Amino acid sequence: MHELADASGAVIRPYFRVDVSITDKTDPDDAAVYDPVTEADRNGEMAIRNLIRERYPRHAILGEEHGREGEGPELWVLDPIDGTRSFIGGFPTWGTLIAFNDGEAPLLGVMDQPVTGERFVGTPDGAFLAERKLHARGCRDLDAAVLYATTPDMFSPTELPVFEDLAARVQLRRFGGDCYAYCMLAMGLVDLVVESALQPYDIQALVPIVRAAGGVVTTWEGGAPDQGGRIVAAGDPRLHEQVLTRLAGV
Amino acid sequence: MHELADASGAVIRPYFRVDVSITDKTDPDDAAVYDPVTEADRNGEMAIRNLIRERYPRHAILGEEHGREGEGPELWVLDPIDGTRSFIGGFPTWGTLIAFNDGEAPLLGVMDQPVTGERFVGTPDGAFLAERKLHARGCRDLDAAVLYATTPDMFSPTELPVFEDLAARVQLRRFGGDCYAYCMLAMGLVDLVVESALQPYDIQALVPIVRAAGGVVTTWEGGAPDQGGRIVAAGDPRLHEQVLTRLAGV
Repeated sequence: MHELADASGAVIRPYFRVDVSITDKTDPDDAAVYDPVTEADRNGEMAIRNLIRERYPRHAILGEEHGREGEGPELWVLDPIDGTRSFIGGFPTWGTLIAFNDGEAPLLGVMDQPVTGERFVGTPDGAFLAERKLHARGCRDLDAAVLYATTPDMFSPTELPVFEDLAARVQLRRFGGDCYAYCMLAMGLVDLVVESALQPYDIQALVPIVRAAGGVVTTWEGGAPDQGGRIVAAGDPRLHEQVLTRLAGV
Repeated sequence: MHELADASGAVIRPYFRVDVSITDKTDPDDAAVYDPVTEADRNGEMAIRNLIRERYPRHAILGEEHGREGEGPELWVLDPIDGTRSFIGGFPTWGTLIAFNDGEAPLLGVMDQPVTGERFVGTPDGAFLAERKLHARGCRDLDAAVLYATTPDMFSPTELPVFEDLAARVQLRRFGGDCYAYCMLAMGLVDLVVESALQPYDIQALVPIVRAAGGVVTTWEGGAPDQGGRIVAAGDPRLHEQVLTRLAGV
């Protein structure tokens, strides 16, 4: 996992905050010339795929940019840049997501931030940021919780009022998280992440990190989160249970 | 400016992401014991104040945590942690803001992120991130713009629909910026920041950074931004003019 993250980080890092000030975005010809995000995304994923193919030629791979290859049951699930909009805006709150799924569930997960040098790792032995072992914090009551979602724009018209109702009851709600919010939950700094419209590669790497830190992550219906969709993660299982009740039947 | 930022960074850094997992937030007695954000805020500002008093005893100081002291006209304007909510959540998108106002306008500004090691500096000779000179990018049309605001919750009931109307016309709108968004605008990665309910210490340090990079920052009415309130910053003066028209009369 570390080799894969090292390789993708080396590819992606040079594309971050490149000077596009000479490009007038309102000139459509100019805008078509160079798209650093797409290039970083594609090349980063390819770097990871190449290494997996070399080492584990029988494993399957599912990635955001280049789709699925191979048959499994062992499956690597990749998102080279989770949080492309943060990446575009120059914010460091994006990450490279790498999950290893043994055919049952995501067993190992990495969220790598190659610019700040942070690497969050989830394993059956615990969740870690470098040497620090991560622990989600206790927070039983909704009105004491810090809630994150990437953006209000991710919710459908039927989901948004339910999210807004939840958000009105917490101590603090904030937008702009992407994968970063799940890692902060595993660190005991965020209590809740409630999102929608996620892809499998948006969540699988984060599942082992959240779970190994003592948190819970499921769909809004309480099912396995592996296929993405509508996701709720909580640092405290008691809070998770409460929130599921509020999200039921949407 | 660098000495001040070094001093505050050394004080604030140890409070970031402290392990509060042992604290059950739902126990009110426990929660009262230790508030790392407040401590970091207060002590960070005090470190800056002490250095200013030593070196420039006749200058006035205005800070978020400890108010105003001295008479000016030279005035230092301080926000030890701009983006306390990001700080609380463990996100690196907050900064220490230090402005020097010569009695007319903010002349020098620093946005220092002591965890990632980023320091954005605005001077009459240009805006810089380390050795890189910053340039805002051209973006004439609203529908090509990347728009940031810290949170939709900062707008009043009369302001929110106007912001929402603006946000519906841009290419991408995102929340969660605080001071970071203005620095990304100066870097040519964000085109617009539209906010409300800012304090003088939320904006004065950012004004020289935005202006030296070629951007424009004013109130929604087009006036001097120094006293905060409702603020609009744009990387392209043509875009700024357009947006002012849309915000007029709110």
